[in-house]
Amino acid sequence: MDLWLPGRIISGRGCVRKNKKALLALGSKPLIVCSRSSHLNGSYEDVVSALGDVEFATCDAVPANPKVSDMDALAEVPRREKCDYVIAIGGGSVIDSAKAIAMLSANNIDAKQLYAGEFVNPALPIAAIPTTCGSGSEVTSFSVLETSETKLSFASDSIGPKLALLDAGYLETLPLDIVLDTALDAVSHAAEGYIIHDSAASDLFAEGVFATFAKTKDSLLSGHCGAEVLEMLLTAALYGGVVISMTRTSAVHAMSYAMTAQRGIPHGRACCSLLGQYVLFSHDAKPGKIDRMCRLMGVEDPKGFVDILNRLMPDAGTYTLREVQKFTQISADAAVSKKNPREMTTEDVLRIFSDSLKIS
Amino acid sequence: MDLWLPGRIISGRGCVRKNKKALLALGSKPLIVCSRSSHLNGSYEDVVSALGDVEFATCDAVPANPKVSDMDALAEVPRREKCDYVIAIGGGSVIDSAKAIAMLSANNIDAKQLYAGEFVNPALPIAAIPTTCGSGSEVTSFSVLETSETKLSFASDSIGPKLALLDAGYLETLPLDIVLDTALDAVSHAAEGYIIHDSAASDLFAEGVFATFAKTKDSLLSGHCGAEVLEMLLTAALYGGVVISMTRTSAVHAMSYAMTAQRGIPHGRACCSLLGQYVLFSHDAKPGKIDRMCRLMGVEDPKGFVDILNRLMPDAGTYTLREVQKFTQISADAAVSKKNPREMTTEDVLRIFSDSLKIS
Repeated sequence: MDLWLPGRIISGRGCVRKNKKALLALGSKPLIVCSRSSHLNGSYEDVVSALGDVEFATCDAVPANPKVSDMDALAEVPRREKCDYVIAIGGGSVIDSAKAIAMLSANNIDAKQLYAGEFVNPALPIAAIPTTCGSGSEVTSFSVLETSETKLSFASDSIGPKLALLDAGYLETLPLDIVLDTALDAVSHAAEGYIIHDSAASDLFAEGVFATFAKTKDSLLSGHCGAEVLEMLLTAALYGGVVISMTRTSAVHAMSYAMTAQRGIPHGRACCSLLGQYVLFSHDAKPGKIDRMCRLMGVEDPKGFVDILNRLMPDAGTYTLREVQKFTQISADAAVSKKNPREMTTEDVLRIFSDSLKIS
Repeated sequence: MDLWLPGRIISGRGCVRKNKKALLALGSKPLIVCSRSSHLNGSYEDVVSALGDVEFATCDAVPANPKVSDMDALAEVPRREKCDYVIAIGGGSVIDSAKAIAMLSANNIDAKQLYAGEFVNPALPIAAIPTTCGSGSEVTSFSVLETSETKLSFASDSIGPKLALLDAGYLETLPLDIVLDTALDAVSHAAEGYIIHDSAASDLFAEGVFATFAKTKDSLLSGHCGAEVLEMLLTAALYGGVVISMTRTSAVHAMSYAMTAQRGIPHGRACCSLLGQYVLFSHDAKPGKIDRMCRLMGVEDPKGFVDILNRLMPDAGTYTLREVQKFTQISADAAVSKKNPREMTTEDVLRIFSDSLKIS
């Protein structure tokens, strides 16, 4: 077991306003990094209210699936405005961008150098306020951004948020397909981590996600997610983040990045379109844990798991054989070098893509 | 939910020697705080080996149930030797003493002032290496020490260990009654926290302890705890510490302190001799959670829980009515002011003592 949480995690309705002291303790002038939706769900307003008279700057132009190349311009804002900490409000894209901005701003480097390894200075301290229920980025110390072909991640303890404030009220205005896409990302984190790694604490958190899946899947299927369900999903996303902090991700994530970068498939949807076949592929290597996972999720067996993922998932599109080959070409090296329970070849990667996706 | 872990938690056989870099990163000259048993179970030797050429000082005279008044003399060592971090090797008594020493050494105060509130300087950084499976002190930010009548605790984020190294091999030489006493302390932490507080993360960790209890109780009853069981118990103790970090403890702990300070009853034994009746007392206020706890522990109902505690527990002694009245007098104020699921009076405290203990 190697368990480390980068900061304090506080959840509950109204937690942003209630914990303004903890927020203000991070520095003297924050940069708020957010997407436009934070103006609609109340989160931005709560942060501004918590800041009171404190001067701050805002970057509210983070796109979905932000690119590494977007970061240099964004990092100009905190440099120019002399911000000394970052408040990230949004989904994984926003929080991961905030992590890059916090690191770039503290070091005189450009975005490409994020992937060169060591950093001279720690990143600016980060507070994260998730407004989706997927990435778990509010508790991880890595950031995943797009390049032209796939996604790249960089890691540093210092980009792990010092404070995470989880208010499920911000999910109430989230469209159902984003609730689903992000909830499935959390399921993928937990399932991948559970299958590729064995440790008491990562198993505990993963099993917490599976139990939540069992309790929430009927609501997700019906499309009616009430306050209590949203709160459970937000907690499950956090747990999924704790899991991958300990386990990292499997070939599923590596493969999904090609689908997202090439075809714009939302991240959680891309993962879960591949996860079922990956679980079937892995079953012989880890039958006990995979069967237990299914039982805890309230599904009969790995085939039942594939079935419920397909029923839950928004449409993952139709692909040409050529596209699937391209995905394989882009992602196979990363996928086979991940820690997988069963050794994978490029052919396995191609087969999992082919068996998972509708091919025209 | 308010979840915060003070540092990194690494577990596994040989983890002390494997993680010497993380240990050495805490400062330049450590004080090792330990009890004599650390020389027998290999932990002291592993730490000294990990330190290599690094100069260090040692305090190996920490008694069981150390007193506040012992701390001033102990804190002279790091002051004199100019130590800048502390490595605690032992059970709860040792780790809690190390926390006091680390705070005293960093501040020019005497031990009584530990209970006066604010501290000017943070404590010296602490690494904790538990060699019993109970207190969870390796992950909490409080320290509990004896006074003449009862126990007192002080808290500060800075006494939360920055590094916890959990090697179940150190438990192999532990006498069975100490395994039992400390394992029951962990059960008490989880059960108390679960009953008095509701949050996703504290429930998750508590349920992790209950699941471990279900898996290990037959081994504990038989007196044969193999390597795998000891590893599970060490993990459960950690989880119990995470639970009480979020929930604090109930009247059970407050009441147990009087038994330990007055009669020297080991801490976990004192707690568990009271826990069963406390659970029965609380059942009407929290039936759902208490029944679920019993189910997860593999016992039929709260009465079955009382029964298995009695079978597991080393002898908790025989008391006079006068002693029980004295325990009540000493602990009732603290016990009734704890967060309990059902309001308690001094009469309830007396009744729980009377129903729990053999009275001569």
